Amino acid sequence: MSENLTEIASLGEFGLIDRLTKGLENHNESTLRGVGDDCAVMRYKDTDVLVSTDLLLEGVHFDLTYVPLKHLGYKAAVVNFSDIYAMNGTPRQITVSLGISKRFAVEHIEELYSGIRLACEIYGVDLVGGDTTSSRQGLVISITAIGDAPADKIVSRSGAKDTDLICVTGDLGAAYMGLQLLEREKFASAGQKDFRPDFQGKEYIVERQLKPEARRDVIEELAKAGITPTAMMDVSDGLSSELLHICKASQTGCRVYEDRIPIDYQTALMAEELNMNLVTAALNGGEDYELLFTVPLHCHDKIAAVPGVKVIGYITREDLGCALITRDGNEIPLKAQGWNPLKEQ
Amino acid sequence: MSENLTEIASLGEFGLIDRLTKGLENHNESTLRGVGDDCAVMRYKDTDVLVSTDLLLEGVHFDLTYVPLKHLGYKAAVVNFSDIYAMNGTPRQITVSLGISKRFAVEHIEELYSGIRLACEIYGVDLVGGDTTSSRQGLVISITAIGDAPADKIVSRSGAKDTDLICVTGDLGAAYMGLQLLEREKFASAGQKDFRPDFQGKEYIVERQLKPEARRDVIEELAKAGITPTAMMDVSDGLSSELLHICKASQTGCRVYEDRIPIDYQTALMAEELNMNLVTAALNGGEDYELLFTVPLHCHDKIAAVPGVKVIGYITREDLGCALITRDGNEIPLKAQGWNPLKEQ
Repeated sequence: MSENLTEIASLGEFGLIDRLTKGLENHNESTLRGVGDDCAVMRYKDTDVLVSTDLLLEGVHFDLTYVPLKHLGYKAAVVNFSDIYAMNGTPRQITVSLGISKRFAVEHIEELYSGIRLACEIYGVDLVGGDTTSSRQGLVISITAIGDAPADKIVSRSGAKDTDLICVTGDLGAAYMGLQLLEREKFASAGQKDFRPDFQGKEYIVERQLKPEARRDVIEELAKAGITPTAMMDVSDGLSSELLHICKASQTGCRVYEDRIPIDYQTALMAEELNMNLVTAALNGGEDYELLFTVPLHCHDKIAAVPGVKVIGYITREDLGCALITRDGNEIPLKAQGWNPLKEQ
Repeated sequence: MSENLTEIASLGEFGLIDRLTKGLENHNESTLRGVGDDCAVMRYKDTDVLVSTDLLLEGVHFDLTYVPLKHLGYKAAVVNFSDIYAMNGTPRQITVSLGISKRFAVEHIEELYSGIRLACEIYGVDLVGGDTTSSRQGLVISITAIGDAPADKIVSRSGAKDTDLICVTGDLGAAYMGLQLLEREKFASAGQKDFRPDFQGKEYIVERQLKPEARRDVIEELAKAGITPTAMMDVSDGLSSELLHICKASQTGCRVYEDRIPIDYQTALMAEELNMNLVTAALNGGEDYELLFTVPLHCHDKIAAVPGVKVIGYITREDLGCALITRDGNEIPLKAQGWNPLKEQ
């Protein structure tokens, strides 16, 4: 280990935790006690509690060849916040567990933590606990997010109804194309010492992969507009997969229009450059962390006025199945070809 | 993979989750929605919420050479419940995240889950969510436990006062000696096909290592006796380490008597057989999952009547430091030599 870096063993678990959590301040009334005891303590008076958890493993979910540790920390936190927003809630606390292999120094873990802490500051979330241990393998990150929402505002996957409008925020497929680009540059740079990847004109798709944001803004806009979705999810595994989840849970079918799927021009250019099917990428790419939701038909004018939201189709009776309507008017059954790490081994 | 085993890839993530969570029933009023959405939903009306999390990694925290998967699942759940009891709370929900490497079949993960589910049944806890993914390395288990307690009953580490009595439940060092035995048998059996380890007369220490229990019974007895501890922790890293945590958080010192430390005879025999220092094992062994707590001096008679609890010393002013009083009356400063995975690499 370089002489400028501090070995984790020199601090031990509790010394490391002290260093990582120094100066932490809590933002939420519901946080009574954070780091430093057997448990964190929270108080939720008039709201229900939401809990979501994600496990991120090196070599499966991230590649430290091109993912900076600070970005990784930021993303690991934000994707958990996204799950809370996807229930129409507000994230309030997270716990962070890390498995750290020998090749990391204290400064590396501080980098990772600086990203987590930045995400917490921006989204107003308190870091209240976790577990820190050594790993014989790669870096392991397990984050649990806790949030809240008034009982009558919580939106599940199962509330979609026939004729509801299907809406999606932002654009899709960019994070996936960003990943393809990063992977390509990784292989191109292999063995070259001073290789500098050229991301000019591709900044957006790279940022979508490395530093996604959760759509708190849209949740706030929907509340302002007085709209409570009938069903909602965040798009982590790809639009197709999430649509099928909503339709299965709601016992409905759906129709979405190919030409309504929002795609950024950088995503389109990259797909062309790599000779990949653009719609497939947008439907199945995953990691967009946009919100997919349904609203009653009578909300059409209201929802059209919400910035960053696009209506892409509608909910049908269950027996009509789930289909994409192509530009030329054909119906193609929707399939979940989303990213499935358990099939990829 | 043997033809009797089911490849995980054949089910995929959602198929596997469906299979693992089939027939799950919730026991707690506070559980509104469990597995199957972006978040679990809970409602806590008049109690505060407690959250604790643990990350267990193969090769660091467990060795599948001698740990049966069902026991591992049971232990992984119970050690999290123990953290909730250590705050004088009741565990209500857990989320379970698994990173699964290629060598595991569906049936293996079902074994692991059967242990988790058994622990949940016995302790009345609801499994409400998690994350399941592949792992390039070994098995990864991350569990978050959620519990609750009335605000005025929560016990932290920081409430110990000068003259308080120091109490511990059960006995100490057994899990550590069980681990030494299992490790010895592992090495003895290496390369031998039909090796059968002989655990006769050592069942207790093996069970303490492989299948620990959380001290719900003592928490219930204390409540019945009308005793609220001033400070409490569970003994996971070893008595010395935990005592130092309580004294640091409470700004106190302490004295504990060597001859008061509860030790089972199997622990003592094993230490002798392995030529290890028994008191060191009892002070620093860890993984006992007993409760260490302090009560005001006037509770002496009441606490003496609670089954399974032993008074081992008392809290002092901070400037007197933390010390063990040996059988021959000497004072030895307490040191945290507990199991510290971040120093062991």
